[in-house]
Amino acid sequence: MIGLFEEAVRAALREDLGRAGDITTAATIPPGTKASGDIVARKAGTIAGLPAVTETFRQVDPSCLCDVLVADGKAVAGGTVLARVSGEAASLLTAERTALNFLGHLSGVATATAELVSAVAGTKAAIVDTRKTTPGLRALEKYAVRMGGGKNHRFGLDDAVLIKDNHIVAAGGVGPAVRRAKEAVGHMVVVECEVENLVQLEEALAAGAGAILLDNMPPETLREAVRLTAGRAVLEASGGSTLATVRAVADTGVDLISAGWITHSAPNLDVALDFVSR
Amino acid sequence: MIGLFEEAVRAALREDLGRAGDITTAATIPPGTKASGDIVARKAGTIAGLPAVTETFRQVDPSCLCDVLVADGKAVAGGTVLARVSGEAASLLTAERTALNFLGHLSGVATATAELVSAVAGTKAAIVDTRKTTPGLRALEKYAVRMGGGKNHRFGLDDAVLIKDNHIVAAGGVGPAVRRAKEAVGHMVVVECEVENLVQLEEALAAGAGAILLDNMPPETLREAVRLTAGRAVLEASGGSTLATVRAVADTGVDLISAGWITHSAPNLDVALDFVSR
Amino acid sequence: MIGLFEEAVRAALREDLGRAGDITTAATIPPGTKASGDIVARKAGTIAGLPAVTETFRQVDPSCLCDVLVADGKAVAGGTVLARVSGEAASLLTAERTALNFLGHLSGVATATAELVSAVAGTKAAIVDTRKTTPGLRALEKYAVRMGGGKNHRFGLDDAVLIKDNHIVAAGGVGPAVRRAKEAVGHMVVVECEVENLVQLEEALAAGAGAILLDNMPPETLREAVRLTAGRAVLEASGGSTLATVRAVADTGVDLISAGWITHSAPNLDVALDFVSR
Amino acid sequence: MIGLFEEAVRAALREDLGRAGDITTAATIPPGTKASGDIVARKAGTIAGLPAVTETFRQVDPSCLCDVLVADGKAVAGGTVLARVSGEAASLLTAERTALNFLGHLSGVATATAELVSAVAGTKAAIVDTRKTTPGLRALEKYAVRMGGGKNHRFGLDDAVLIKDNHIVAAGGVGPAVRRAKEAVGHMVVVECEVENLVQLEEALAAGAGAILLDNMPPETLREAVRLTAGRAVLEASGGSTLATVRAVADTGVDLISAGWITHSAPNLDVALDFVSR
Amino acid sequence: MIGLFEEAVRAALREDLGRAGDITTAATIPPGTKASGDIVARKAGTIAGLPAVTETFRQVDPSCLCDVLVADGKAVAGGTVLARVSGEAASLLTAERTALNFLGHLSGVATATAELVSAVAGTKAAIVDTRKTTPGLRALEKYAVRMGGGKNHRFGLDDAVLIKDNHIVAAGGVGPAVRRAKEAVGHMVVVECEVENLVQLEEALAAGAGAILLDNMPPETLREAVRLTAGRAVLEASGGSTLATVRAVADTGVDLISAGWITHSAPNLDVALDFVSR
Amino acid sequence: MIGLFEEAVRAALREDLGRAGDITTAATIPPGTKASGDIVARKAGTIAGLPAVTETFRQVDPSCLCDVLVADGKAVAGGTVLARVSGEAASLLTAERTALNFLGHLSGVATATAELVSAVAGTKAAIVDTRKTTPGLRALEKYAVRMGGGKNHRFGLDDAVLIKDNHIVAAGGVGPAVRRAKEAVGHMVVVECEVENLVQLEEALAAGAGAILLDNMPPETLREAVRLTAGRAVLEASGGSTLATVRAVADTGVDLISAGWITHSAPNLDVALDFVSR
Repeated sequence: MIGLFEEAVRAALREDLGRAGDITTAATIPPGTKASGDIVARKAGTIAGLPAVTETFRQVDPSCLCDVLVADGKAVAGGTVLARVSGEAASLLTAERTALNFLGHLSGVATATAELVSAVAGTKAAIVDTRKTTPGLRALEKYAVRMGGGKNHRFGLDDAVLIKDNHIVAAGGVGPAVRRAKEAVGHMVVVECEVENLVQLEEALAAGAGAILLDNMPPETLREAVRLTAGRAVLEASGGSTLATVRAVADTGVDLISAGWITHSAPNLDVALDFVSR
Repeated sequence: MIGLFEEAVRAALREDLGRAGDITTAATIPPGTKASGDIVARKAGTIAGLPAVTETFRQVDPSCLCDVLVADGKAVAGGTVLARVSGEAASLLTAERTALNFLGHLSGVATATAELVSAVAGTKAAIVDTRKTTPGLRALEKYAVRMGGGKNHRFGLDDAVLIKDNHIVAAGGVGPAVRRAKEAVGHMVVVECEVENLVQLEEALAAGAGAILLDNMPPETLREAVRLTAGRAVLEASGGSTLATVRAVADTGVDLISAGWITHSAPNLDVALDFVSR
Repeated sequence: MIGLFEEAVRAALREDLGRAGDITTAATIPPGTKASGDIVARKAGTIAGLPAVTETFRQVDPSCLCDVLVADGKAVAGGTVLARVSGEAASLLTAERTALNFLGHLSGVATATAELVSAVAGTKAAIVDTRKTTPGLRALEKYAVRMGGGKNHRFGLDDAVLIKDNHIVAAGGVGPAVRRAKEAVGHMVVVECEVENLVQLEEALAAGAGAILLDNMPPETLREAVRLTAGRAVLEASGGSTLATVRAVADTGVDLISAGWITHSAPNLDVALDFVSR
Repeated sequence: MIGLFEEAVRAALREDLGRAGDITTAATIPPGTKASGDIVARKAGTIAGLPAVTETFRQVDPSCLCDVLVADGKAVAGGTVLARVSGEAASLLTAERTALNFLGHLSGVATATAELVSAVAGTKAAIVDTRKTTPGLRALEKYAVRMGGGKNHRFGLDDAVLIKDNHIVAAGGVGPAVRRAKEAVGHMVVVECEVENLVQLEEALAAGAGAILLDNMPPETLREAVRLTAGRAVLEASGGSTLATVRAVADTGVDLISAGWITHSAPNLDVALDFVSR
Repeated sequence: MIGLFEEAVRAALREDLGRAGDITTAATIPPGTKASGDIVARKAGTIAGLPAVTETFRQVDPSCLCDVLVADGKAVAGGTVLARVSGEAASLLTAERTALNFLGHLSGVATATAELVSAVAGTKAAIVDTRKTTPGLRALEKYAVRMGGGKNHRFGLDDAVLIKDNHIVAAGGVGPAVRRAKEAVGHMVVVECEVENLVQLEEALAAGAGAILLDNMPPETLREAVRLTAGRAVLEASGGSTLATVRAVADTGVDLISAGWITHSAPNLDVALDFVSR
Repeated sequence: MIGLFEEAVRAALREDLGRAGDITTAATIPPGTKASGDIVARKAGTIAGLPAVTETFRQVDPSCLCDVLVADGKAVAGGTVLARVSGEAASLLTAERTALNFLGHLSGVATATAELVSAVAGTKAAIVDTRKTTPGLRALEKYAVRMGGGKNHRFGLDDAVLIKDNHIVAAGGVGPAVRRAKEAVGHMVVVECEVENLVQLEEALAAGAGAILLDNMPPETLREAVRLTAGRAVLEASGGSTLATVRAVADTGVDLISAGWITHSAPNLDVALDFVSR
């Protein structure tokens, strides 16, 4: 099925192969040499990006076999074999780094997400991402967030409305901003508004915002916001949630907690390709 | 001057603008509304990516003014204003996130690099990057490494030879692998070989490797490798260098210490665009 | 400001200029020959696409002047001058057809939309488009729909959920389909469900659909659907609305009436470039 | 065989799938669900675009089966099954709209062309298209014209010369314009000249134009032009030919009648994908 | 004015700059260093490609000045200064090789063409090119042929018909092949047919071929072909024309002599950029 | 395996097929007609580019069979059959010219290189290419140089340092230029410096240049340079080497002799596709 990964993998291979291709492998690996390897998670984490791995080997050499043993979204222990690859040694070596760069990065995002999701387990709060993504990788990172158990916020400036403080100032207040946005967009577009206090919250609710971003509010204010809203809109707590603090935020009863760092600052999961004799 | 950033910025803007553009801004900001803002580093760090910032504002709207106050490569304190932007409020809002995503990510890489560089100050060791980069952003991340005071390893599979364990096995040993590589490539291509022990080191030196990667060796072995090599090749220590351990590695006398995490796992530097009245 | 039209215009010019460019003009127009012209609507209609006109002249020759006299979205009488262009005669002749092809097509879409919008004036119903657009021109045609006073339905398969009969069958009914969709997507994505009768409507409402597409229902059923729904969801009447029938549909009290033909079958508005002596 | 449709289909699928793909189908269709469907012409017409249909299903999922039952160029009755598709239900649903958008649009062009062709049956006149095509779809629309029994005029500004009134003015008359053009281009390029009266016709013939466009002339003038020309050049009648008027034009003995509306204003043929149990 | 050179120059610069740009210049030229230079033809020849030179400097750095002193198509003596460039030294050095590669190659094509054109001066024969061009550079090489005084044959497989021996065999003879082609294409497409003897020539003429390629015929046969044809079609002599033999071919009275080597085997004209003090 | 040729072949086919494809073949070859042919070297030479041939037939029609009989890099006699192709006649005819254009051009480069290589046989000198390549074809031409037995110089401005006279002037001398470059680049980048006399040679050696380009020096000076250098750097003789002069240069003991003409001025090798009955 047509997928997310084809073009990103193509661009990454072009970036790595440059003008002359894998000159080390061309010089040292006799044609016809076969090899096999295991793709392994060196550390525990939640996996995302195995379709990019298979796509990378496929693009480098369609005759490579890539047997995926673990589904994206699965939490694995350190040492778990995620996939087995085999074929021309030259092809495996050429594809290795690109495949691992995708897998390590996306599993890093999924793992960070899963940690937050786990921290709020039992509350009604979902963890959501932001537009603070790595340039060029937004759709893939948002996929990784889903694999980690999170939910996606909007994918770009075009698919949903999020009114921020500067829009509010320019439009003359929360009410006019929300109303203008609802007037401008079609019925398939949700209008969310950022508010800084409970007065703005009331204005946003009155104007019919579908979702409200509560900006950097302490738990007690969040709790009051939940009470005031009484289900009239989706409530998103935003700002500075870490593994240490996220539970307290979730316990306020908000619907969503957004975190930028799960996409822009999650460390890679340590993954490797171990060549083996089979 | 023709630059690194134009195409990456174009791709990132396309990713954010999607099919319909910034619908929030279109709905809420009256045409002709002007605004000004400061791009600020919220935390201390080493800056990289301001050319991507200016390019982003330029592509969104060539009439935006973007006055850069700090050069890439500069270490700044938290709170430092890095650039001032002004122009159509709508343009600033549309460009904001893309510009900051580049700046935060690349400054994160530069900052991580600079911390390692600082830790080895006074030794002869340079910090170098790897090919463990974020897919699609290699040239930019390697630029950020330079801005952080590091050096670049090869840019791709095509511009230099790095013989690893699997190449060695397939070629029948370190000596044959290095000799084949030197035979295959032109004089502008450096041949580096990974070795796992001092016997392999001697073979690589004898075969004429220009550089040698010492894989995961403890400091005392590294020190012995430096002594044995006696300047006949560039020596790179690789594997697991952290801020805590890098000094001990540098003190062995190696020429280079490579670190993958500075490109694949450096957290973003916290940067923001504060709208101001001017 | 970065816009919708740049890439579409570039592709259209490439299509028209081919490998060798405008060979007629190159052969017959002496360099330095200047010309002026008026872009005119030969028939009455609602205008959309003048930014594509200015972009076309700009890409062919940035020294062309293009003075737009009428805003997109304006209804004009036959004979109205929409823009004045002047510059190198060769440039005007090379750009002419591409500019007019955009303007005629998009104004045709806007005009068809405006006719439907006018027909339902005074009701609460808005006219919305569909995904039945000309391949490659969706964002532009949806822009033209807005210029004609219509609203946009979703832009693609990715920015909103629209559950149709086959999804319902595969998911095991309206209720499960809506619930699965709401579970899968983030809070910024609206879930709409197509229903074929009032029983399905009740199921969709109970499952929490944000919008409901009433498929090919006669006015009396639509009216009953409006009554039953009582504002719990946005109601869209779909199927076969023409200028002759749309008013009766609007009078039922539905929120939206969708029409595919305004994008896939609207005839071009007749526009031309008349060269003039100035 | 390499074809016209691959890139257009790829662009159309990208446009529809956006960043996140078919989220409705992903949420509601269990993996492994199979389906079958018939692609049906709801109304009578002449078919064009089935290769785009097969290409769309192939690109979405190469495992889809698409059995084409009718050749492009065939006139069919309303209700005719044009093709049978089967495979993963998810793939069929994702591909459906893009496939139908091509088929409906191109069959609309072919149907309009065929109606004109039928109206002039028995005369020597062929129906030809123009450059008044939908931006981005020229080669496909010209293919549809051929499928409708029409002939193609030039494909772009670069593959043939068509001298229009402004070229004539700038070149100093019909004679100089035609002679300059013949001097400038190679022997594989036909030179056609637009004329507004019989004096210009004589000049164009004397200068050796290979084809002459008779602009908006009444039938009696066309007849006189045919007589005067006596086979020395191909004669094209241009301007305002409709189904009602085209026969009278054809009866004058002209070789070609061009019509812009068959590409820019032909309504879609109504086509649909009906899912069936097989 | 939109031109032939923009995309080819962009691709060539990308090819030369790779991932990291001009690292020599970045390392050695202090920012702000200015320079001037003369672009010089070291040998006599006919110039083509100066627009690619100016475009290259413009793309590298729009602030470069490039003053063109000689028009494309001009024959110059060795030592002639063709253009003067000035600006940032770094920009000139980065652009130099790409600019010269275009200029040397295209001037080589123009010079070879001009030599053949000169050799047939006074006859009615024009020199024409073929599709034996360098992959990726066809439109530019055909431009250079025109600059050398030659004429262009078709630009691709799509803009004119050229029936060769295999088409004749498959179609069942010259006559059927020509007739089928004339039936299939529109009036703006010339049909040329290759013939190997005078019997085939008569068949092609009888079938109405617009042009006839006389394949590898000796001068006496060409002369007879000219006599037989008596102006009924354009006659092209093809096969092995060199500077030594072309005059004898031209003297037979053919209209055209085609030569593949002027595009695929013309040596570069020796051009250089001499830095000067001004 | 992923390769050099895919994108270049795609671009060349697009260039040849234009908007409408192979109209001659479409008009004259009945569907289902099969054909076979031999790709033959008409003249003796060294072959390069057969992978581009197979890729061209594959892209035009994956059902074509292409049986390669000779490996790239092989020297063959005139008349040698290089490959056998068979399949749809239409596909073979459409692919023919593009395939041969690659093969003739690249084999021309390989043949010219092989002639120089042969002329220096028995000396230690290798023949190397330059950046004086045909725009858009650098990687392929450098591949052809390797197939001819030559070595590659750098691939672009970004993968190695080559300091020329203008860099030297701007940097304040050979020594400072070399030292700045070595300081700026990583250990995988070779620094080469052009010198015009033996004084500069000494400076370059003292500064640690890895390679030195001896610009236009007579054999006796080259010999002296070899003596002085005593193996401390790779020595490249540059400037004007022809088949007649290259041996004398090689006999001086230099390591490398570079020649621009093997890529920019080598005539095509004469190759053809002969259709045969099998």
